[in-house]
Amino acid sequence: MAGEFDLIAKHFMRPSHAPGTGVMEGIGDDCALLQPAPGQQLAVSSDMLVEGRHFLSTVQPERLGHKALAVNLSDLAACGAEPLGFTLALALPRSDEAFVAALARGLFALADAHGIALIGGDTTAGPLNLCITAIGQVPPGQALLRSGARAGDELWVSGLLGDARLALEVFRGTLALDAVYFESVRRAMEQPEPRVALGLALRGLASSAIDLSDGLLGDLGHVLRRSGCGAVVDMPALPRSAVLARQTAALQQLCLLAGGDDYELLFTAAAARRSEVIAAAAKAGVAVTCCGRIVAGAGLHVMLAPGHTVAAATLGLRGFDHFDGS
Amino acid sequence: MAGEFDLIAKHFMRPSHAPGTGVMEGIGDDCALLQPAPGQQLAVSSDMLVEGRHFLSTVQPERLGHKALAVNLSDLAACGAEPLGFTLALALPRSDEAFVAALARGLFALADAHGIALIGGDTTAGPLNLCITAIGQVPPGQALLRSGARAGDELWVSGLLGDARLALEVFRGTLALDAVYFESVRRAMEQPEPRVALGLALRGLASSAIDLSDGLLGDLGHVLRRSGCGAVVDMPALPRSAVLARQTAALQQLCLLAGGDDYELLFTAAAARRSEVIAAAAKAGVAVTCCGRIVAGAGLHVMLAPGHTVAAATLGLRGFDHFDGS
Repeated sequence: MAGEFDLIAKHFMRPSHAPGTGVMEGIGDDCALLQPAPGQQLAVSSDMLVEGRHFLSTVQPERLGHKALAVNLSDLAACGAEPLGFTLALALPRSDEAFVAALARGLFALADAHGIALIGGDTTAGPLNLCITAIGQVPPGQALLRSGARAGDELWVSGLLGDARLALEVFRGTLALDAVYFESVRRAMEQPEPRVALGLALRGLASSAIDLSDGLLGDLGHVLRRSGCGAVVDMPALPRSAVLARQTAALQQLCLLAGGDDYELLFTAAAARRSEVIAAAAKAGVAVTCCGRIVAGAGLHVMLAPGHTVAAATLGLRGFDHFDGS
Repeated sequence: MAGEFDLIAKHFMRPSHAPGTGVMEGIGDDCALLQPAPGQQLAVSSDMLVEGRHFLSTVQPERLGHKALAVNLSDLAACGAEPLGFTLALALPRSDEAFVAALARGLFALADAHGIALIGGDTTAGPLNLCITAIGQVPPGQALLRSGARAGDELWVSGLLGDARLALEVFRGTLALDAVYFESVRRAMEQPEPRVALGLALRGLASSAIDLSDGLLGDLGHVLRRSGCGAVVDMPALPRSAVLARQTAALQQLCLLAGGDDYELLFTAAAARRSEVIAAAAKAGVAVTCCGRIVAGAGLHVMLAPGHTVAAATLGLRGFDHFDGS
């Protein structure tokens, strides 16, 4: 059985101080050294993934490696930050080389796609747990925050919502899907694409942004509390896959409004800047959909159909809370 | 039972963008935003602590909070970096408010002592696991690295070695100690003091540095491999507590050379700079001891007594490897 240092050296140590990455010293010293561009602010995000909670024991390790990094890059994207590098702390129940190799492949494939390096970390024995901290940079004052939404702004979302939750329901046994449909929603759950390019394109354009990890209503609630305003969500407008569109209205509602694990960007922008938003999304190569508006005063409402708007609280959906067993 | 957000809000959210800390947006947005001083490099360290591996289930949560941050600040210290802030990702088996409150107290007491803020993180249900990522800054070119030791340098260590291992042996039942002695070595194990001030004072003075987490021989081995040289450790000179000095020669040797969990700095400096090293340590308020020298060629030797020097490998001690069950 290979020891800890051997496993790390074989699968995770790569030349990380390549010219241009801003990484000066990577894995192998007490700390990684990073040189941000002059005057930039740093954006820092940490997420911990636990077996049975954030991923199932059946997940392919390559997809797990992808997802562990993706959820952190999604946080950077939601701030409009440019990723610089990341650390990985990993607890493994046993020294399983095939698992580690596949995990590293998935992780580095996404890291390479974004031109960033693994700069350090830790490996230990323990119940399976991955903790990634991603570090990015953003010019001072240009970070997208949750606090900037204003009455009159339009509400936008990237990509499609709800497929990850649909996959989860299949895993939970509450729903059956044909294999080809299942594969497509399973990919949404296991391999989300962080919207980094979109976040960069929205600098100076979006008035607020957040990434969707706990479900639209819960995450939008964070934006509204921070911004001191309310919103009306246009339920029929919410973008969904053909697979989700075939499900019952109740299941669509659950998946779209309280699905969790979407890792799309939810953002607001002044209505007058609609064409700029569309151009920015096109430049980033991501579909965006206008799905509501910000209103004065507190309160989150959902327009279920034209002329039929209800308070979100009456829908009996709620945000994801790790300790409530949802 | 309080939900995740309530627990975090109550015990971990503090105003973290106080003037002067360089922290712009803390917990509550997608990312923390940090403004390093102009032109500084960043030093980043991540460590994951797992129950039964890095701490015992009997540890007081306040001490655990201290230690989780201390081991990361120790890495920053070993680079000569000035701490700026840290993230905490926490997996908890259940929503235990008393535990979280005490953990937060221990964590913030050490954070406050170093003038740094918790800037973000994550909380989830799962087997107890703490992952902290600490971020510091250091002027370009001034970071202390493992690679700078040169033949002729003197080898130094801060504080006392081996008490943490002595405490571990008591917990393992291989040793009995009077209560008052046990409390003192237990404190060394559970509440190490990161040598941040010493690390700063050694900038431009130490030729290499590392923090002692896996035992002196193992950690010194990392320095020697990176630096391309060898060393002779002066065993009688190694600084030890009165409690350790009362133990058998074999146990002293184990604790001093392969103890683990010391979190002292091991560093090298040119012999001509000895008085500067002593002055820097005095300024930092930390005792340092010269305990060997760097020699040309590969090889790590231990002088057990004057005139009796052996190759370290012949002692049958080895560095800590999480997968070898040590």
